Amino acid sequence: MTLCDVGNTTFDFYRDGVREKIFIADYEIKKSDEKIFYICVNEKIASNLKNFSNWIDLKDFVDMKNYYETMGIDRIMGCEAVQNGVIIDAGSAITVDVVKNGKFSGGYITLGLHVSAKAYKELSCRLDYSYNFEIDLDKMPKNSADALTYGQLGLLYRDVMSHSLPVYLTGGDASKLSSIFKDAILDEELLFKGMKNIMKKGDLC
Amino acid sequence: MTLCDVGNTTFDFYRDGVREKIFIADYEIKKSDEKIFYICVNEKIASNLKNFSNWIDLKDFVDMKNYYETMGIDRIMGCEAVQNGVIIDAGSAITVDVVKNGKFSGGYITLGLHVSAKAYKELSCRLDYSYNFEIDLDKMPKNSADALTYGQLGLLYRDVMSHSLPVYLTGGDASKLSSIFKDAILDEELLFKGMKNIMKKGDLC
Repeated sequence: MTLCDVGNTTFDFYRDGVREKIFIADYEIKKSDEKIFYICVNEKIASNLKNFSNWIDLKDFVDMKNYYETMGIDRIMGCEAVQNGVIIDAGSAITVDVVKNGKFSGGYITLGLHVSAKAYKELSCRLDYSYNFEIDLDKMPKNSADALTYGQLGLLYRDVMSHSLPVYLTGGDASKLSSIFKDAILDEELLFKGMKNIMKKGDLC
Repeated sequence: MTLCDVGNTTFDFYRDGVREKIFIADYEIKKSDEKIFYICVNEKIASNLKNFSNWIDLKDFVDMKNYYETMGIDRIMGCEAVQNGVIIDAGSAITVDVVKNGKFSGGYITLGLHVSAKAYKELSCRLDYSYNFEIDLDKMPKNSADALTYGQLGLLYRDVMSHSLPVYLTGGDASKLSSIFKDAILDEELLFKGMKNIMKKGDLC
């Protein structure tokens, strides 16, 4: 069984537990006998993939009444992976979704680590500090690096923890955020788990 | 009595309750008999002002043991204006400071409305939504505009309200934020109040 998470920069394949990431520019989509169950957030590639019958879009098997129309399919797969939890997908944006008893109960999007740090720096050279991942978020900050860290990551932490649910971390910056979300479950394959669950629901495997 | 809040773009004068903002490029600092009690976050102008004896830097009269060295003097003046409260100064950055029993107990800096909206938009055209200032922050978002609004302003709101203190709003975007912080005290002259309090403490008036 081959799964693929198509993003804006890579085709991320998953075959029997083995990941293979290929840059979009380095990959040619071809007709083949290999069935590939995919999700895709890249609109240009999404319309091309529709021409290949061996590429099967898992979006078509999602019960969308649980979600909303413009919600990213990657967020939906994260939600499909857990029964109860807050799912943080930390990439260029950080998405946060809450699932209770297997049902999406809402979520939001904040700026990714790199993007927010860059925005601070561009605002003023006096805001050019690296985030302090060792920050004590139980105290209000009394230095500049902590003030910036708290202003993005502290606010995120406090909201996420207020839900009193297990926290799942995935995405490129998941390991960085795990310094802050110390009890979170770090799972780089969370979206593939969601994809497999959708396949089971749709009798695709 | 003349007060002046020197920022990065304007000299903001306050004379007996009357404000006058003059762009930096349009204002020539001259020796005069008018005593001007000022704060200044603009380093270049700050060093120039030291040459004029009628310009009196209120920073010199602040008891810095209550604050930290790199904390902006504008934030300090906000803190000096209140006995108990959370002070939100919403400009290109949004600063949030907590004062309890007249003592600064910590604060943080997050991105301003314009800066964060621009950062979302630059990330993806699918994140090009205006903030929804009518958002119901008691519910988790289930649409894109609310998801972005909550990801910046909702997180800020939830943290600020958790302190259970009066909320003071000042700065250029204060009135926009008052749609979200419905019970906040909107006070465009908060920093000048802090400046007057420093003058009283320092026997300058």
